[in-house]
Amino acid sequence: MTDVQNRWTTRRREKNRRMTGLALRSGSKIVDASGIDDVLSTLIQPGDRVSLEGDNQKQADFLAQALADADPERLHDLHLLISSVSLPAHLDVFERGIATRLDLAFAGPQSLRLAQLVEDKVVTIGAIHTYVELYARMFVDLPPTVALLCAEAADEHGNLYTGPNTEDTPTIAEATAFHDGIVIVQVNRIMSELPRVDIPGDWVDVVVVSPRPYKLEPLFTRDPAKIGRVEILKAMLAIRGVYERHEVVSLNHGIGFDTAAIELILPTFGEELGLRGRIARNWVLNPHPTLIPAIESGWVESVHCFGGEPGMERYVAARPDVFFTGPDGSLRSNRVLAQLAGQYAIDMFIGSSLQIDGEGNSSTVTAGRLAGFGGAPNMGNDPHGRRHSSAAWLDLASGSGASRRGRKLVVQLVETFKAGGTPTFVDRLDAVDVGTDAGMPLPPVMIYGDDVSHIVTEEGVAYLYRANSLDERREAIAAVAGATPIGLRHDPRVTERLRRDGLVAFPEDLGVDVRRADRSLLAAKSVGDLVAWSGGLYDPPVRFRNF
Amino acid sequence: MTDVQNRWTTRRREKNRRMTGLALRSGSKIVDASGIDDVLSTLIQPGDRVSLEGDNQKQADFLAQALADADPERLHDLHLLISSVSLPAHLDVFERGIATRLDLAFAGPQSLRLAQLVEDKVVTIGAIHTYVELYARMFVDLPPTVALLCAEAADEHGNLYTGPNTEDTPTIAEATAFHDGIVIVQVNRIMSELPRVDIPGDWVDVVVVSPRPYKLEPLFTRDPAKIGRVEILKAMLAIRGVYERHEVVSLNHGIGFDTAAIELILPTFGEELGLRGRIARNWVLNPHPTLIPAIESGWVESVHCFGGEPGMERYVAARPDVFFTGPDGSLRSNRVLAQLAGQYAIDMFIGSSLQIDGEGNSSTVTAGRLAGFGGAPNMGNDPHGRRHSSAAWLDLASGSGASRRGRKLVVQLVETFKAGGTPTFVDRLDAVDVGTDAGMPLPPVMIYGDDVSHIVTEEGVAYLYRANSLDERREAIAAVAGATPIGLRHDPRVTERLRRDGLVAFPEDLGVDVRRADRSLLAAKSVGDLVAWSGGLYDPPVRFRNF
Repeated sequence: MTDVQNRWTTRRREKNRRMTGLALRSGSKIVDASGIDDVLSTLIQPGDRVSLEGDNQKQADFLAQALADADPERLHDLHLLISSVSLPAHLDVFERGIATRLDLAFAGPQSLRLAQLVEDKVVTIGAIHTYVELYARMFVDLPPTVALLCAEAADEHGNLYTGPNTEDTPTIAEATAFHDGIVIVQVNRIMSELPRVDIPGDWVDVVVVSPRPYKLEPLFTRDPAKIGRVEILKAMLAIRGVYERHEVVSLNHGIGFDTAAIELILPTFGEELGLRGRIARNWVLNPHPTLIPAIESGWVESVHCFGGEPGMERYVAARPDVFFTGPDGSLRSNRVLAQLAGQYAIDMFIGSSLQIDGEGNSSTVTAGRLAGFGGAPNMGNDPHGRRHSSAAWLDLASGSGASRRGRKLVVQLVETFKAGGTPTFVDRLDAVDVGTDAGMPLPPVMIYGDDVSHIVTEEGVAYLYRANSLDERREAIAAVAGATPIGLRHDPRVTERLRRDGLVAFPEDLGVDVRRADRSLLAAKSVGDLVAWSGGLYDPPVRFRNF
Repeated sequence: MTDVQNRWTTRRREKNRRMTGLALRSGSKIVDASGIDDVLSTLIQPGDRVSLEGDNQKQADFLAQALADADPERLHDLHLLISSVSLPAHLDVFERGIATRLDLAFAGPQSLRLAQLVEDKVVTIGAIHTYVELYARMFVDLPPTVALLCAEAADEHGNLYTGPNTEDTPTIAEATAFHDGIVIVQVNRIMSELPRVDIPGDWVDVVVVSPRPYKLEPLFTRDPAKIGRVEILKAMLAIRGVYERHEVVSLNHGIGFDTAAIELILPTFGEELGLRGRIARNWVLNPHPTLIPAIESGWVESVHCFGGEPGMERYVAARPDVFFTGPDGSLRSNRVLAQLAGQYAIDMFIGSSLQIDGEGNSSTVTAGRLAGFGGAPNMGNDPHGRRHSSAAWLDLASGSGASRRGRKLVVQLVETFKAGGTPTFVDRLDAVDVGTDAGMPLPPVMIYGDDVSHIVTEEGVAYLYRANSLDERREAIAAVAGATPIGLRHDPRVTERLRRDGLVAFPEDLGVDVRRADRSLLAAKSVGDLVAWSGGLYDPPVRFRNF
């Protein structure tokens, strides 16, 4: 090779050098679990940028633990890219001095410990991203040297079968494999013939059989038994005041009991209103068990998923007209494509938040935690550039001439007070101080007020997209903020003007009878009811088998 | 099968029924070109939604022609999804009555004829999308029944090799294959072993060997010989006034001579300023030949591509440290992932437009044409929701408290007049009337004024992101609009205030010596120079071999 060629092939030559050092059995990419230490210490070098797969749901936990157990004399100063920091091992790697720098998207269960490690200067954070931002940067300025991924099964050639939780594996594999990075995958088992191929074998360098199946959390399961009158009232207001009014056909639901309540009253309250087939037909969301009654009642035309949900495998496989499934019959999810759909192809995002300020900015960040938001900020914003039209999008149109355009519905669905009497509506988000304390360049706001089109509380619906000024937006928010400080300062005389101008609607304005808001409206009242609706196809995880 | 099972498997059973009707040779997915008529008439049914691959660059032209040649008695009322309507056959299908409904993203070469067919009610348009919107809807409300795709090569099992122009094939294949649609692919050749697998064989139902290689246009090649003083002056202003000022590290360049000029003066003008390594390191764009000198001079750390570019294959393959390439050595592009990167992972989009109005709205649509914009609207907007920070993004920050946030740079680079003396700055975009005449719900604006952060003309730079009101934005635009009607109405006395407040900068404010703006600054002055810079690796298409 000439010097000129060498100059432009440093990544490829380095990869070849490391792979040669590993000396795989000829013709096979499979390594026994006992050899993992040798694999990591041969294929990873100090200073490497390593993408460790910790998705929203599935975790490359065996590889994470192996990395945490590595010899820090040999492996140090790694730069880790982890979308969801959710295992103790993810931070053990830092405490042991193996890694020093972290780019992440979300750190739910580890957010307290992460905050401490940042304060102690054990972890240096590059940035807190959304999921797709982090993946996008893997194709720009953060291409991984090594990716540590997980899949359900592999064959001898390294072809991968992900099963229902495809999630982010194809995207990280593509960023790494096509820039001369090294792709190492833990699998639950080796099969001579895979049910289907999710990722081609020539994108994969090494396959390790994990001694135990990868970890997977049932993040999207909500027990209908915990849904009360207030959630049901909000669900009724949302359906009449938002879904029906704007004819919302395609949508994403966030996680939570509020949206679960909506899913569960579509077949009852929604049916009474004659809305089946008119609203909520095309969904972008994970396989929520609480959506089963609506699916079985013929409400749902399609569901595309970011990931899977434990227990929903057999049900999803039996409903291929609705879910995206493969030739093997099981779900194919894909976070990047679902986010793309959520950004560009749906009418509405609706979700909850812990705090909302007077201008409508919201955040789930609270003191002492370095959390992040996963995918919500990408779903919860109006894409803002030119977009194709849909009826709902056009219904929110504003401006004139060339500037006229529609708007994606971004709906916040909250109770004015949370459990324990803590107000949801606050003068100042905790996120502002958290950001300052943690030295963040900007406060960790999840969804900005100017992106929010509606706020639904148990008091009513605020149509923020109709506000002509920031002051009007503040007034409309305060009018549905109940007895919180923000609500109490609101001048009730303004309310009538807001109602008249269509900025605020109360239950009576929407034809919602508050007395009907009780559990009898729920199409399923327990996890057991969901199992029954599914014809026995839904297998709830053990912790939900309380019916 | 029980009735319950049947109710939820209509798509799968229908696919199986059609595939059984085709009777492929056992164990093979390959069909001879002569059998294409049988394939299409067996696998497609009247009323189907068919995704016909017409990407920005590559075209499934053999399949498009075969569809246009089908018997309208047998095949009719199809709903076509075509991202780029660019072949006569794409519209012949409608004229022959085989298809009636069209969802598209772009119709450059066929835009006049398309407008006529819509007027004649031969074509009914669903919506005009951006590329990724159309793909996103394939996972929501427009899943294809059948996809007609193209690839470089296939093996007996239907595994596909796309070569450098991966583009959109994996995305459309995923949307179709994983919702029980039928995937039919034309390939240039069959190989017993593929150089790499881009799409797994079990996503593919039928492979047809095309009698000729698929069509591919060199859309991103600009001849440096056609770059003049004005383009060079604008390039100097952009580099000093935007790239250097905001330290733009990651970026996308639109197509055109303006951005080509920037690419070509980085190694000369940019080098003098000591900017190498400080700006323009990470790129999201197709393999522009005019970027070769900057790459060879060590400016470019990485390039991720939407598609490929004819003639750039050997050069790209020889620069794997820079480009994303596969184990076979050749480029792997991917439009959806490059768009994702352009949306979420870069500091800046810079591109040109045909018309800009006084508020900064811009469009490339002109009278009588139903064009569309491909990917520009997605690159040319500020994603608007929460985003991770970069230095450039933060440099444009505004707001306070929870509302404070940065901004993606969206730069319009135009000459005040186009060839023939037509003004670029206009009181009213042609797009407004085109939209009305064509019965569009909104005018076909490409980039909205409130998303544009800067406008660069030969007069200077307007820093629109600093405008505190729509009036100030109008003034700043007018100040760089030269002798166009909008520029002439501008009160020159306002200009001094705008300069003082940093809303406008002229060449002298930016330290740009206008006299130096000549072709001697171009690192390459001809296509021949580009070939020389590439060390003979760049093979320009015939039409550019004029040096």
